[in-house]
Amino acid sequence: MVFPDYSHLPHVVIAGGGFAGIAAARGFIGKDVKVTIIDQHNFHTFLPLLYQVATAALEPAEVAYPIRTIFGKEKNIGFRHGQIMEVDHEAKHVRLNDGAVIGFDHLVIATGATAAYFGIPGASKFAMPLYSLSDSRKLRNTLLMTLESADVEAEEGKPVTRTFVVVGGGPTGVETSGAIAELIRIVVRRDGLRIDPANIRVLLVDMAPRLLTAFPEKVSTYTVKKLTEMGIEIQFGRSVVEVQKDSIRFDDGEELEVAGVIWAAGVTANGTLASAVQESRGPSGRLRVGSDLRLADSNCVWAIGDSAAIHQTDTTYLAQLAPVAIQSGRHVAKQILNVINAHPTKPFKYHDKGIMATIGRHAAVAKLPTGQVIKGTAGWLAWLGLHLWYLVGFRNRLRVMINWTWRYFDWPSGPRLIVADAETAD
Amino acid sequence: MVFPDYSHLPHVVIAGGGFAGIAAARGFIGKDVKVTIIDQHNFHTFLPLLYQVATAALEPAEVAYPIRTIFGKEKNIGFRHGQIMEVDHEAKHVRLNDGAVIGFDHLVIATGATAAYFGIPGASKFAMPLYSLSDSRKLRNTLLMTLESADVEAEEGKPVTRTFVVVGGGPTGVETSGAIAELIRIVVRRDGLRIDPANIRVLLVDMAPRLLTAFPEKVSTYTVKKLTEMGIEIQFGRSVVEVQKDSIRFDDGEELEVAGVIWAAGVTANGTLASAVQESRGPSGRLRVGSDLRLADSNCVWAIGDSAAIHQTDTTYLAQLAPVAIQSGRHVAKQILNVINAHPTKPFKYHDKGIMATIGRHAAVAKLPTGQVIKGTAGWLAWLGLHLWYLVGFRNRLRVMINWTWRYFDWPSGPRLIVADAETAD
Repeated sequence: MVFPDYSHLPHVVIAGGGFAGIAAARGFIGKDVKVTIIDQHNFHTFLPLLYQVATAALEPAEVAYPIRTIFGKEKNIGFRHGQIMEVDHEAKHVRLNDGAVIGFDHLVIATGATAAYFGIPGASKFAMPLYSLSDSRKLRNTLLMTLESADVEAEEGKPVTRTFVVVGGGPTGVETSGAIAELIRIVVRRDGLRIDPANIRVLLVDMAPRLLTAFPEKVSTYTVKKLTEMGIEIQFGRSVVEVQKDSIRFDDGEELEVAGVIWAAGVTANGTLASAVQESRGPSGRLRVGSDLRLADSNCVWAIGDSAAIHQTDTTYLAQLAPVAIQSGRHVAKQILNVINAHPTKPFKYHDKGIMATIGRHAAVAKLPTGQVIKGTAGWLAWLGLHLWYLVGFRNRLRVMINWTWRYFDWPSGPRLIVADAETAD
Repeated sequence: MVFPDYSHLPHVVIAGGGFAGIAAARGFIGKDVKVTIIDQHNFHTFLPLLYQVATAALEPAEVAYPIRTIFGKEKNIGFRHGQIMEVDHEAKHVRLNDGAVIGFDHLVIATGATAAYFGIPGASKFAMPLYSLSDSRKLRNTLLMTLESADVEAEEGKPVTRTFVVVGGGPTGVETSGAIAELIRIVVRRDGLRIDPANIRVLLVDMAPRLLTAFPEKVSTYTVKKLTEMGIEIQFGRSVVEVQKDSIRFDDGEELEVAGVIWAAGVTANGTLASAVQESRGPSGRLRVGSDLRLADSNCVWAIGDSAAIHQTDTTYLAQLAPVAIQSGRHVAKQILNVINAHPTKPFKYHDKGIMATIGRHAAVAKLPTGQVIKGTAGWLAWLGLHLWYLVGFRNRLRVMINWTWRYFDWPSGPRLIVADAETAD
């Protein structure tokens, strides 16, 4: 492969290879711009399906795709494995964790979000978030190991109970608790575990008085009904005050012994890089941007996706959702090209595509931009189709489709592997 | 699921869920025997394809299958996650790493083999073996990280060279070096890495004067020709005297800077349990067994597969191969049933099915029991078919077949993910 010399072209550095960063890079395909995507992982992770990796329905490689492979044919778009530690606005360069210095003409911050623990003691240490491939692997190991140990006690004739607590009743909390309930059912039915599913308790708690607050109230009622049918206990108006290795404590004083706490309570912008470029940031630690997505005090640093606090109205901000990330990524590429070509930039306008969440087989909920609601099997099929469509790489789509078909017909196999490396950091 | 009470039945404990242990357990399906497979992993690993996981051609879940799922329908065959630390021959029980004590009427040792380092300094610490899923993940990370760092230097205009040394010219060494060469070719062609494949050196070394010594000489000649065409350097008559983090030293004094050393130099029986049941063991630390596969000094402890030194003639032993493991597993189940039913045991006879090794796409070698040799595309197709056939689980077979078809037509995708957890032990 012969590489043309791109060193004379404007250099756009994109920090982060998530939905936003990949969408931004795609906007530069075939343009007279040199692009470098910098990420600490060499792969793009399809975050909406991480909970399925965590519950042994999908494999890591089915929701992750090498960034280099996405842009393999695009010679002006490169990848650099590493993490940005410092940004020098004057010299217009970034410094990586390995000491390398990379100059830029434009810098796009697309480092996304991570779990927010709100300073609750023990939460960041003992609760399990779901924001990376290794998070999902750690949760999978915990789930499967817990079922193994419960089986040993059941075999020895001891009374067996285990409790998983899912904190947060948004889409992630709903999807994860539903998938855990399905995993337990499959494991007991197919793997010959001697436990009574009723003794493996899944408890979904939220501070709010209902689930899925971004959806209309009737969706919450439907979701509560479905989850309850699946054996999940739901408790509203409870907040967590402490998490320990084997226990959780609530604001009403109750302390529960737990096999695991899944943390789906909220997100905050990834900190290191954000704090390096802006001192006073917006809600959830997000970077304050102007209407064209440029940082207020910069002419060449931009922020998109979950990293950016993008105004919806003068006083509200867009939610941290995949469609916002993708659309803001596309927008930033166009605006950077505008700046390079000495054209004026345009403000970002979000086109609402609706929101959706899955509860289990045959049950999902969607809210269309019109406000209309789809529930049940129709919502579930829409959910399947949409997620397959957005998965990167034809092979991944094919593999996930095969897995889902399999699971639909309830054939017994599944990647229920306990891998020993879950304790390590991501 | 209602479990019948099997506590009155004879209890067979099988230590290890590899080829041998699984084959043995299968022999008890539907018999009046309670079986417990004990393994430190909850999955069976298809060792012959680990090198494809290491070179990012297959995913971990494609070569691993949960043991519980294999026997999900067989209520008399159970699984216990753990590792046996002690065997009490008098009391007829084993003690696990978690302290649990499990009684047995018969104990089958099928804990397999691991890499043999022959006391070479640094080898066990720095060289990478290929005997477990986490071994293969560690090698994959090393390969991909090395290519990333080489790309950074190439981009910075530095002269780039990297050397991987594969120690051992048996099937594992041949297959791994061939697959590394293919990985480099694909990565450079498809992922836009700016390195010259000629600068990534793959060196295959062996003490012996030829490769694949279990095959006839003309196979070795053919293999050398094929590997050389793929850009692999082969050196005979060299032995390793020391391995360091970044270097290897040979008996002739030469010291090479290396990006990684892959250890395929030989195997030894897994030690902990073997030494707990027999003090003076056979070649490669294997357990000495009688002709019916029972330990010489026991009436209820048996050894099979790579753990057992099974006589071929009075002075030679069978090689540590998958077909020997499978056949000895089937044999031991029949003999234990014979003992339980007060019938005499029969001696084990190995039915030679031939041996094979793959070199790369379109090139494999096989030696039939008749001594006839198959090479090239015919050998490769036979290799594909045989490995698909023996993979556990229909879904895994389907997925591996899809992957291989993909790779055959050279479509660009592949699970080239660098996961951060490679440093941990298996």
